[in-house]
Amino acid sequence: MSKGIKFQQVGDRVETYYLIKSATKAIASNGKPFLTLILSDHTGDIEAKLWGCSPDDETTFTSQVIVFINGEVSDYRGRLQLKISSIRPTTAMDQVKVADFIRSAPISPSDMLEEITQYIFDMKNPNIQRITRHLLKKHQEAFLESPAATKNHHEFVSGLAYHVVCMLKVAKSLANLYPTLDTDLLYSGVILHDLGKVRELSGPIDTAYTLEGKLLGHISIMVTEIAEAAKELAIEGEEILMLQHLILSHHGKGEWGSPKVPVIREAEVLHMIDNIDAKMNMMDRALERVQPGEFSERVMAMDHRSFYKPSFHEPPLDY
Amino acid sequence: MSKGIKFQQVGDRVETYYLIKSATKAIASNGKPFLTLILSDHTGDIEAKLWGCSPDDETTFTSQVIVFINGEVSDYRGRLQLKISSIRPTTAMDQVKVADFIRSAPISPSDMLEEITQYIFDMKNPNIQRITRHLLKKHQEAFLESPAATKNHHEFVSGLAYHVVCMLKVAKSLANLYPTLDTDLLYSGVILHDLGKVRELSGPIDTAYTLEGKLLGHISIMVTEIAEAAKELAIEGEEILMLQHLILSHHGKGEWGSPKVPVIREAEVLHMIDNIDAKMNMMDRALERVQPGEFSERVMAMDHRSFYKPSFHEPPLDY
Amino acid sequence: MSKGIKFQQVGDRVETYYLIKSATKAIASNGKPFLTLILSDHTGDIEAKLWGCSPDDETTFTSQVIVFINGEVSDYRGRLQLKISSIRPTTAMDQVKVADFIRSAPISPSDMLEEITQYIFDMKNPNIQRITRHLLKKHQEAFLESPAATKNHHEFVSGLAYHVVCMLKVAKSLANLYPTLDTDLLYSGVILHDLGKVRELSGPIDTAYTLEGKLLGHISIMVTEIAEAAKELAIEGEEILMLQHLILSHHGKGEWGSPKVPVIREAEVLHMIDNIDAKMNMMDRALERVQPGEFSERVMAMDHRSFYKPSFHEPPLDY
Amino acid sequence: MSKGIKFQQVGDRVETYYLIKSATKAIASNGKPFLTLILSDHTGDIEAKLWGCSPDDETTFTSQVIVFINGEVSDYRGRLQLKISSIRPTTAMDQVKVADFIRSAPISPSDMLEEITQYIFDMKNPNIQRITRHLLKKHQEAFLESPAATKNHHEFVSGLAYHVVCMLKVAKSLANLYPTLDTDLLYSGVILHDLGKVRELSGPIDTAYTLEGKLLGHISIMVTEIAEAAKELAIEGEEILMLQHLILSHHGKGEWGSPKVPVIREAEVLHMIDNIDAKMNMMDRALERVQPGEFSERVMAMDHRSFYKPSFHEPPLDY
Amino acid sequence: MSKGIKFQQVGDRVETYYLIKSATKAIASNGKPFLTLILSDHTGDIEAKLWGCSPDDETTFTSQVIVFINGEVSDYRGRLQLKISSIRPTTAMDQVKVADFIRSAPISPSDMLEEITQYIFDMKNPNIQRITRHLLKKHQEAFLESPAATKNHHEFVSGLAYHVVCMLKVAKSLANLYPTLDTDLLYSGVILHDLGKVRELSGPIDTAYTLEGKLLGHISIMVTEIAEAAKELAIEGEEILMLQHLILSHHGKGEWGSPKVPVIREAEVLHMIDNIDAKMNMMDRALERVQPGEFSERVMAMDHRSFYKPSFHEPPLDY
Amino acid sequence: MSKGIKFQQVGDRVETYYLIKSATKAIASNGKPFLTLILSDHTGDIEAKLWGCSPDDETTFTSQVIVFINGEVSDYRGRLQLKISSIRPTTAMDQVKVADFIRSAPISPSDMLEEITQYIFDMKNPNIQRITRHLLKKHQEAFLESPAATKNHHEFVSGLAYHVVCMLKVAKSLANLYPTLDTDLLYSGVILHDLGKVRELSGPIDTAYTLEGKLLGHISIMVTEIAEAAKELAIEGEEILMLQHLILSHHGKGEWGSPKVPVIREAEVLHMIDNIDAKMNMMDRALERVQPGEFSERVMAMDHRSFYKPSFHEPPLDY
Repeated sequence: MSKGIKFQQVGDRVETYYLIKSATKAIASNGKPFLTLILSDHTGDIEAKLWGCSPDDETTFTSQVIVFINGEVSDYRGRLQLKISSIRPTTAMDQVKVADFIRSAPISPSDMLEEITQYIFDMKNPNIQRITRHLLKKHQEAFLESPAATKNHHEFVSGLAYHVVCMLKVAKSLANLYPTLDTDLLYSGVILHDLGKVRELSGPIDTAYTLEGKLLGHISIMVTEIAEAAKELAIEGEEILMLQHLILSHHGKGEWGSPKVPVIREAEVLHMIDNIDAKMNMMDRALERVQPGEFSERVMAMDHRSFYKPSFHEPPLDY
Repeated sequence: MSKGIKFQQVGDRVETYYLIKSATKAIASNGKPFLTLILSDHTGDIEAKLWGCSPDDETTFTSQVIVFINGEVSDYRGRLQLKISSIRPTTAMDQVKVADFIRSAPISPSDMLEEITQYIFDMKNPNIQRITRHLLKKHQEAFLESPAATKNHHEFVSGLAYHVVCMLKVAKSLANLYPTLDTDLLYSGVILHDLGKVRELSGPIDTAYTLEGKLLGHISIMVTEIAEAAKELAIEGEEILMLQHLILSHHGKGEWGSPKVPVIREAEVLHMIDNIDAKMNMMDRALERVQPGEFSERVMAMDHRSFYKPSFHEPPLDY
Repeated sequence: MSKGIKFQQVGDRVETYYLIKSATKAIASNGKPFLTLILSDHTGDIEAKLWGCSPDDETTFTSQVIVFINGEVSDYRGRLQLKISSIRPTTAMDQVKVADFIRSAPISPSDMLEEITQYIFDMKNPNIQRITRHLLKKHQEAFLESPAATKNHHEFVSGLAYHVVCMLKVAKSLANLYPTLDTDLLYSGVILHDLGKVRELSGPIDTAYTLEGKLLGHISIMVTEIAEAAKELAIEGEEILMLQHLILSHHGKGEWGSPKVPVIREAEVLHMIDNIDAKMNMMDRALERVQPGEFSERVMAMDHRSFYKPSFHEPPLDY
Repeated sequence: MSKGIKFQQVGDRVETYYLIKSATKAIASNGKPFLTLILSDHTGDIEAKLWGCSPDDETTFTSQVIVFINGEVSDYRGRLQLKISSIRPTTAMDQVKVADFIRSAPISPSDMLEEITQYIFDMKNPNIQRITRHLLKKHQEAFLESPAATKNHHEFVSGLAYHVVCMLKVAKSLANLYPTLDTDLLYSGVILHDLGKVRELSGPIDTAYTLEGKLLGHISIMVTEIAEAAKELAIEGEEILMLQHLILSHHGKGEWGSPKVPVIREAEVLHMIDNIDAKMNMMDRALERVQPGEFSERVMAMDHRSFYKPSFHEPPLDY
Repeated sequence: MSKGIKFQQVGDRVETYYLIKSATKAIASNGKPFLTLILSDHTGDIEAKLWGCSPDDETTFTSQVIVFINGEVSDYRGRLQLKISSIRPTTAMDQVKVADFIRSAPISPSDMLEEITQYIFDMKNPNIQRITRHLLKKHQEAFLESPAATKNHHEFVSGLAYHVVCMLKVAKSLANLYPTLDTDLLYSGVILHDLGKVRELSGPIDTAYTLEGKLLGHISIMVTEIAEAAKELAIEGEEILMLQHLILSHHGKGEWGSPKVPVIREAEVLHMIDNIDAKMNMMDRALERVQPGEFSERVMAMDHRSFYKPSFHEPPLDY
Repeated sequence: MSKGIKFQQVGDRVETYYLIKSATKAIASNGKPFLTLILSDHTGDIEAKLWGCSPDDETTFTSQVIVFINGEVSDYRGRLQLKISSIRPTTAMDQVKVADFIRSAPISPSDMLEEITQYIFDMKNPNIQRITRHLLKKHQEAFLESPAATKNHHEFVSGLAYHVVCMLKVAKSLANLYPTLDTDLLYSGVILHDLGKVRELSGPIDTAYTLEGKLLGHISIMVTEIAEAAKELAIEGEEILMLQHLILSHHGKGEWGSPKVPVIREAEVLHMIDNIDAKMNMMDRALERVQPGEFSERVMAMDHRSFYKPSFHEPPLDY
């Protein structure tokens, strides 16, 4: 059996099933059409060119189709590319399904939901607790399968819930160390901070920005949702304003999308925790296939930095 | 009768009524207490020091009290200051009332309301029209007396409505010249863009930021209000999103408080019109008492620039 | 007859005349030479590749040649490209001329000149009037055919004059609303502000920057021209300095090419009007072929923004 | 007995001992000299003016002298000031000592040393362990009493050690959540990151920058110390370089004093932990005396923000 | 005889003549008027307060009056201040004249003129030579007495000419080392680069910005003057454009007042030489009275840096 | 014989030896592999494509191999490219050696060493002299062959030493003009400022950054080396700190890699001299093949500027 895409190296022979993530037609300099395919399995994706494609090929090999491919991994300008020897679409006979080819969070949605629910259950302030529970419930289904972003970090199925679960753990450990923090506010802020992404993004597959995502953004969407939840639940009190402020300010400053800077302690901490989890995720992704003594690819969302793995660290596992 | 404060010059004798805008106690370097009074009439305000004040004075001369003063205008570090010869509080006998001492818009609230109502009446898109009318009506009273800001521009009673009326006129003239503009969207954007200030600011006198003004800001407040209005009126359709985007983006970019940049034509134009009217107001204020051939005081909100009045322009009227 | 280039869509058959705007030779990866042609008519331009071109082709198909082409509009990486089936140069027999293939202002030069002349005629300050008239007359011919820029906005024949005419209308409508504005200064500023471009740019076809355009720029060129005009007309007085300042400061700040920021009211307004007309022109260009509910191409000079056309707006006309 | 300075409010009577932190002579506008005293106890400090001071007073009331004062807390321009009724220097009879008047960390130096030592003891990489132990030992005495800064955060006796202990706890909790982190590198980075401050700062009292603090800074000082330690201990290996990089990059970027940005995972995390602990300390300081529903003083090192304490939070203890 | 002002220290007794540079009236907190005098001799200036001044005093002690003073140097908030014991205006009997009290360049104007003339004489390109000579001659008188700025560097009589002479020497030494430099262009650029300051500034005493200085600036003024000189001398050729570009770009970039960045080699070098001479002058001024092992006052125009004099350097001369 | 690569123009026939600097394999759009060769001689380098290369070709034509080539210079997207007619590897028979194909400084290493040694010999401060001599000696071999950078300026064999020699000359001429400069500090700063590059860069051929170059940088490396040298030579005194500060601050500010800004006079001057020599080198390189009246290629490290050669300057020599 072939290695997962993430683990492939130049020269590896490939004979396996992949999901086509996208297929783009273009014209080669010899005037003939070809397809650029992004192929994926649950570990990653790789580009392949289908040279001299026929009109039939164009309608056969499209996004979300599972194909069986024979080929070899090669290098193209420093990036891996799959050289296709043969390719065919699959049928029911192949007994493969799309879900098997999609990257998702390492914990199951139901486990994550249970964990988050426990945090809500433990809240002491009833206003905060009710609003948080109400909004989570309202968007529960989309929340559990949404990615946290279209790229950069947690850009996989259930990435949003996974990001929230990790942040809750960091929040809990910080609250243990800094007792002045109001855990109700902080946990609620963590749970709701990116919940607007269920309306900002189009869903877990081929994730794109929706129209209201582009024109309002998840921050403004959620500030409004909190107001509506409070009205629906007939809750009044400063807690509502605090929760709205937590959401509004969690990007830290104007240039980063927050029209107000954090002015309560928990808002500042929420911003820092969001940062930590996003950066850890990006660095881990960049370094996971890097050998000791080598540098990773550049991480665009971290100032184009390339990260180094010390030579006295362990090499990555090869499976 | 004494000249209005705006028209006073060093050496002018003063014998008239003023409203105390604020009174602050401090200790002089000789160890004695004194009061710093900000005195105002409907044309402007001036500072005065009440040296060696008694405990009685402290309770008598407080904010919102009208006083009768005898004194002389002098210069203190390049700013005018009133040297008090005598000061006394007023009684019913003086037949003076606070309203006469407060700066307000040059058009009456009812006239402004009528003019704005006409713009709404002329709208063709019923969704935009209904939401605009609903929100204006909901906040009508506060809207008609609110200043547009705590300082910088239109910082007087009814300043917000006056700012809107001026902007509507500019919007109309631009729409005549650039026929691609959707006047319904543009006029609605103008009317609603700062309406959130009725909740962001504390009111027309001694204007300060409210708690939700500081933690959310008028932009987020109004985005939520539009959503609530649409729900209440059972309006659906892209118009709601467009109006929310107009409000959200009208500061132009993140650093200036808009979490999204304008991406519809009317949003960009709204931002430019807002700028024009605010800047014209600030420049006119700065230059109105300046003699031809001289420079104005520095205008903080316009990069600390000092503006010049060409020597071939008319001198200001002296009344 | 074929549609104008601006109105073409993928799949359209083309059989018509085009002007070659530029022809660039390159070597394909199969080692054979090919030409990249930019073809234009009066509505826009489109790229085409002439594969495997002969030495004859290279000398035949050059800039400013009109050709007759048979082909089909296709898509290349998200941009339209014309696939050439046949191409031939034209002769006198074809009865076509270059002027018919060039984009120009929607008003005739003589009408624009008349309109601008009226503004000058109405000026009351004789110094401002004489200098403005003198400089316009001096550069009249080049002014009437110059584009306003090499790209971004008003980058077509007579674009400069058209930009000025539009700005004059905006200036007039603002002056009606803000009576403190000195219309003589403002109109003169509008007429002269970009007049230096007749020396900064190489002319209406294949527009490029001249040497003095690159080393001095149109702002410094015009500041000097005003000084020379005043000397020639024996005019003295502060008006000259004011006009020079209007030109000097009309880009608003140092980073944008103005060594001094505006410090007279009309200079600030001139800067804002310039902005409005340029941005309206860019947004209209970007949106004119966009369907309701879709986004435009990115507009480089407006922070790479892509603009949205609301779905309740009208679709573009198809001719 | 009088309340601690931190807990005083306007109107409180004071009759107690204070330490003079600094005494500055100046001339009042009546031509007479006076002293501005900064008085402190272990909870905070307060300004007082000694009007009309004699030459004797000037030599008596100087820095580090303990005085007995009778006075009243008043308000001067929004800040508390102590109005002195009587003041006298103390003698041995008063049985007071400087140490009682100085703010210091809430944990004893020996407890902190023990805790840090345990972290070093648990390290598995002998190179990292030996260098860390060596450098801590070398500077142990100064390290345990040094503040972490001259102002902003942890600016008290033993503040540096306290900052390190808090950061170690955060580091440990993050390492539990993100298992890819190398705890040896991370803990060593935490322990050494600010150790150069024992040479950058002048010591715990009247803390100022030393010459090498100003010309090199604690970052470069410690990078060199690590090289020297490695040489002395005859340690070779990439660990040395990694430790130097951790120190070098812990301010995050060039503008903030780090000539290299973090390029190993632990360096990025070290920077984030440093931030968290410094900001928590500053916010806690700002908010500790603030009543629910009110805003704190502005925190200079956090973009001049003023922080809000929600009205549903507990009021501060009053002792 | 008393020491020069620059050499005074706290405690020095003073009994000598000074020139009043400026006299400003203000009101003390006891309600009495006082004068703030800036006193100067040819080495520097010092502030003094004249408490309780009479109306006579106000008319007697004004700018440009020479006074005889008896007093003592004291410290006021870290700056030296002169405490006046007695003060009287001078008469013809005192035999003192204003010129003796004014700081000026260390070389005589005629020597500087001779040196600059030699550089012009040595030029080989007649166009450059004639324009340079023409403009220098035109403004010779003002050029020889003008300061180079109102503050920061070379802010003394003949400072402009002295700045030019120093820069010519640096230019010559660099041209020796980098033979690709065109010395005619470079020397002419040095001589003309700040010549516009004779119109930008009001003259050597009480230097202020003129109206055209504020609205155009010395750069634009000189670009125009070069064009006029060329016309007058009937010179055509690219040299004119090059000289204009040298002037235009010598501040280096837009934010610093140059609408075009340098694009010829000599322009870049001119900018660097201007920088070197200005910074050397500022550092020398800051350090001249500093003792070895101490820091200077902060230099505002060099990012508020305070400069250090190494302890192994010589102490300043004391005269 | 063929012209040097730097002097080639489109259409030139080539029949000569070149050194392969790098060879990169890629796949053409027809699916066949090809090699991109960077060929060099001692004057410059040029790209060439070897289409349809065999597996043998791939192992034959690799970095550091000298080849004999027959071909023609052509244009590819505005850059020169060599079209290969024939290519063969060389053997001992060809009697060519790598050293002949490498660009290096115009002065021999031994002459440069002698010159630098003289500067050290003339130093008067023994501490500065001994440390400078010690460090130069320690790294002498690498110093004399190292480039000054991987690109931008002095990126050739012995470029570092050449950069130092040029800077010493500039330093000497400035010290003559500004006598307050301490030449010992300044010359030592020049000699040592980039010496850390012998550890930051991998050497003269195929220059890349080393691991410690990436994680520490030459500035921190040299600060540590100075400390170690002082310890080894048992030198104490402020000179060490001053030398460290000179190195640390020579990039001028944080964004440019200096954790401390210059605070001694010689440090500021060192920074300026470094700038001058680097910029002169870059401008000379950019302009050396440019014809009068034309613009150079853009210089990336100088804000992407393109430099102009005045039309009255000499054309470049053609050999």
